Amino acid sequence: MDGHRDIEALIGLMARLPGLGPRSARRAVLHLMKKRDSQLLPLAQLMSDVGRSVRTCLNCGNLSTGDICNICNSEKRANGQVCVVEDVADLWAMERAQVFSGRYHVLGGTLSPLDDIGPDDLHIPKLRDRIAAEGLREVILALNATVDGQTTAHYVARELAPTGVTVSSLAQGVPVGGELDYLDDGTLRAALSSRKPF
Amino acid sequence: MDGHRDIEALIGLMARLPGLGPRSARRAVLHLMKKRDSQLLPLAQLMSDVGRSVRTCLNCGNLSTGDICNICNSEKRANGQVCVVEDVADLWAMERAQVFSGRYHVLGGTLSPLDDIGPDDLHIPKLRDRIAAEGLREVILALNATVDGQTTAHYVARELAPTGVTVSSLAQGVPVGGELDYLDDGTLRAALSSRKPF
Repeated sequence: MDGHRDIEALIGLMARLPGLGPRSARRAVLHLMKKRDSQLLPLAQLMSDVGRSVRTCLNCGNLSTGDICNICNSEKRANGQVCVVEDVADLWAMERAQVFSGRYHVLGGTLSPLDDIGPDDLHIPKLRDRIAAEGLREVILALNATVDGQTTAHYVARELAPTGVTVSSLAQGVPVGGELDYLDDGTLRAALSSRKPF
Repeated sequence: MDGHRDIEALIGLMARLPGLGPRSARRAVLHLMKKRDSQLLPLAQLMSDVGRSVRTCLNCGNLSTGDICNICNSEKRANGQVCVVEDVADLWAMERAQVFSGRYHVLGGTLSPLDDIGPDDLHIPKLRDRIAAEGLREVILALNATVDGQTTAHYVARELAPTGVTVSSLAQGVPVGGELDYLDDGTLRAALSSRKPF
C-alpha cells in the first residue's frame, strides 16, 4: 500500500466510469499495473492525446480533431439530408451500420424537465441555421424510442415546421430477427399501425 | 468519426481491461470525452504518474514507489510474522480488513501446470531467504481456497520445512453471516472437521 495515495486516486477515477464500480476499478488498476509497459503507459498517452486533440465539431456536434469534423467537411456527405441523433454514440451506431450517407446533427441530449434539460441546452437553434446554410431538404429524426426521445422529436419537428423542410423519423416496428412473443405491447401496436402492403 | 483512429485505439485498449468489453469500453470512452477536463485528462495524468513511479517492492512484491515498500520499511510491521498472498489484490484485502500487523510476501501467482506456471515463476526462494534475514517466526499462508491455491500452499510449506519456521494457514469454515443452507459441501466438511470447543 505504498504509492498508495496515487493508486487509490486512480482507482477512484476509474470507478467513476460507467460500467465499473469500486471493485472492478481495483481489478482494472491492478491489471494495468501488471501490464505497465504494454497497457498502462500507452493508455495514459492515448488518453492524453485524445483529450488534447479531440473536440466537438462546431457544425454538427460530432467528435473531431479540427473545428469541423470529417463528415461535415466531406462534400460527398452533402446530399441534403441530415440525421438528428441524441448523442455521439448514436452517430457511431449509424456509421457502423453504414446505412446513411448524409450528415448528422448531435443534439447532445434529450429534453428532460426532471433533469432540468430544456430546449436551450440542446443544439436546436444551430440545426435550424444549418437548414438554410446547407440547403437541407430532409431532417431525419433518429432519436431513441423512449418517452424523452419522442418528446424531443416532437419538439424539434415543431421548431423546424416554419422552415418548410421535410421532417421524417425512423420507423418503429418489429426488429429484424425479432419474435412477436417476446415483443412489448408498444412495439406490437406501432408495428401494426404502421403496417405496409405485402 | 473524426480523430477516429485515436479514439478507436483508445476504445481498443479500454476493452482489454477486465470487466469491460467492446461495448462498455465505447461507453466509457464517450463518457470520458464529455468530461474531458474533470476526468479524461486527470486520469491520463494519474495513469502516467503511477506508471512511472510505482514499481514492485524488491523484498515482498508489493507495489511501491521506492525499491522497498512502506510495509517492509516500517519497523512496526517487523513482528516476526509474514503473510503469504497470491497477489497484490489479496494484500490490499488484508490491509483493508486491518487484521494483520506483520509483513507480507506476494508470490505473484499460484502453481498451475496447465498455465505453465512452475515454482521458478513464483517468489518462493526469496521467501526462504527472508526467514533468516528478517528472523521470521511464523509464515501464514493466506492463499485462495482453490485447488491451485491449496496446491501452492502445500508446496510452499514443504519448501519451508527445512528452515524450521512455523507455517500456518487461514482457517476454513463457515463465513461470518453465512447460512448453512447456501454453503457448498466442501466448506461444510472443512467447518465440521475443524470444529472447536464452544
